[in-house]
Amino acid sequence: MKISELGEFGLIDRLAKAFAETGRPDSLLIGIGDDAAAWKASGVQLITTDTLIEGTHFSLHHWGWRDLGWNALAVNVSDIGAMGGTPEQALLTLALPPDAAVADLDELAAGLVDAGREYGTAIVGGDIVACETLMVTMALTGQATADAEGRPLLMTRDGARAGDVIAVTGYLGDSAGGLRLLAGEREADPEATEHLKRAHLRHRPPLAVGRAAARLGVRAAIDVSDGLLQDLGHVCRASGLGAVVRATVVPMSPALVRSFPGQALALACGGGEDYELVLIAPGHAIQQVQRVSKGPVSIIGEMTADPEHRVRLLDAGGRELSLPAAGWDHLREAPWRR
Amino acid sequence: MKISELGEFGLIDRLAKAFAETGRPDSLLIGIGDDAAAWKASGVQLITTDTLIEGTHFSLHHWGWRDLGWNALAVNVSDIGAMGGTPEQALLTLALPPDAAVADLDELAAGLVDAGREYGTAIVGGDIVACETLMVTMALTGQATADAEGRPLLMTRDGARAGDVIAVTGYLGDSAGGLRLLAGEREADPEATEHLKRAHLRHRPPLAVGRAAARLGVRAAIDVSDGLLQDLGHVCRASGLGAVVRATVVPMSPALVRSFPGQALALACGGGEDYELVLIAPGHAIQQVQRVSKGPVSIIGEMTADPEHRVRLLDAGGRELSLPAAGWDHLREAPWRR
Repeated sequence: MKISELGEFGLIDRLAKAFAETGRPDSLLIGIGDDAAAWKASGVQLITTDTLIEGTHFSLHHWGWRDLGWNALAVNVSDIGAMGGTPEQALLTLALPPDAAVADLDELAAGLVDAGREYGTAIVGGDIVACETLMVTMALTGQATADAEGRPLLMTRDGARAGDVIAVTGYLGDSAGGLRLLAGEREADPEATEHLKRAHLRHRPPLAVGRAAARLGVRAAIDVSDGLLQDLGHVCRASGLGAVVRATVVPMSPALVRSFPGQALALACGGGEDYELVLIAPGHAIQQVQRVSKGPVSIIGEMTADPEHRVRLLDAGGRELSLPAAGWDHLREAPWRR
Repeated sequence: MKISELGEFGLIDRLAKAFAETGRPDSLLIGIGDDAAAWKASGVQLITTDTLIEGTHFSLHHWGWRDLGWNALAVNVSDIGAMGGTPEQALLTLALPPDAAVADLDELAAGLVDAGREYGTAIVGGDIVACETLMVTMALTGQATADAEGRPLLMTRDGARAGDVIAVTGYLGDSAGGLRLLAGEREADPEATEHLKRAHLRHRPPLAVGRAAARLGVRAAIDVSDGLLQDLGHVCRASGLGAVVRATVVPMSPALVRSFPGQALALACGGGEDYELVLIAPGHAIQQVQRVSKGPVSIIGEMTADPEHRVRLLDAGGRELSLPAAGWDHLREAPWRR
């Protein structure tokens, strides 16, 4: 069955039933089905929005509809996590071709429910429009982490200080490597293939580490969405500093290193879609985060006084490296214009 | 200059500067430029989202870019107003063809700033993606109106009771009439033309009336976006009731009546995009709203016990009328599929 046969209100009813599976937070007063959702709030609230559009952010040749649902929420969870917060209420806007299959929409909803359960988030409203291009937009609110007196503990892009240590969670480049395997650009051994493809198909922002970091005194952070060096550049400009990153300690998975010899560092520094966290703070705060984190938290460099606000990638001998094709600009690099 | 020459980050900087013109609410801690925005909240928060897509919701043959900016915010303000709330933080997602002109985007931003000032709303974040279809999505938070003890006073779709009076703010059908004039389907005298076109080009949700109604004991409301009878049908289903609307008292402007003889009632009952409020409450509460409202608040019918949850439109003799083409379904009626 096509969604055009179900109609707008039939589809809304169907999605609302599916989303009820995530459970209803106690704070929620009104969810899907009214002019607006309503919830009891206190302290500092956060809000972010991110869109995934077919052909730019994903291809259905690689992602299934369930991956799309998961990732649409996960990329927004990543932004709330990068502020040190806890995600709460999500809005879903779907731009759908009218010949989309209802079964595919059910899969999309299942992926959203999977991610909603994983990250404790409820879908409380949204909008559906017909469009020839498939697009999923989510807006997500969150609660800021607070200290014992209720003061918000936020991690911001302008919170870095010269001499702060730069750390990153997890491994970088796996998602970019997985995309290249999915696109058939090269082959890898079965174990590496499984690991790298999964990294591309299911983003897993480290929400608990973000919250712990905010509590432990980390005042600057960003999530890695467009690529490590580009995203770190945003912190440099916002904080009025430069950054030095040591190539030898950028964390890369064994699967990436053995599957992409010669390319792994470029993927790790500029590949994007990692949805790991860059944490920037005095060394003692980063060490405390390392102690409580279940996954790796690697120190990769430090913030410097630099009037040009540059990010410099240095090799083992301290020489500056330049990498091809770092970062991503959504307006300049629309795929159909290449 | 095309936006593709400016690039994503250049465009974000340009928009952020323009949006600073709306002023910064005291409650806002972090606005555009970080992973998420942050604000101090208390009481009950509201959130809604609405999308305008070219070819479905608007045509640039009729709307200017400045109208698009205004209306993108106004349609969301309307949803917050229909809950009785006050809009606060807005997120803007733009899906833009890369050959869009920077000058047009400046106009869009100016319209958003106009509406932001009018309705006391700040744009605190968003996303920009390249897409062949022009689309503007906004998410908008708000603060619920509260009583002296801080309890929220919400107007909901399920808050109607049998015997409640149905009232509507302003005049209905003007926007649909204006669209027909803009499309050249017919001509009208200069004064009517100006009035009706303006109703279509600049939606003006009656925010103050919504807040007053919530304070004065109105517990059910909806905004008129898809057409009076269709929107009232949502209230009927949510409240488990029927509704009777008297055609003779549906408020229509003199401009609409004289420009569309024979069609005015159909436009008023099913035209849509009025962004007026339907208020449903005991008669004494509606009378109090009428006393404080600057614009007209017309009583048009009442809620009834009806297991079929139907909306019935009655003529002067109490006979049921049926109107052609009421309401709008975004998936079934995508214009390119007609």
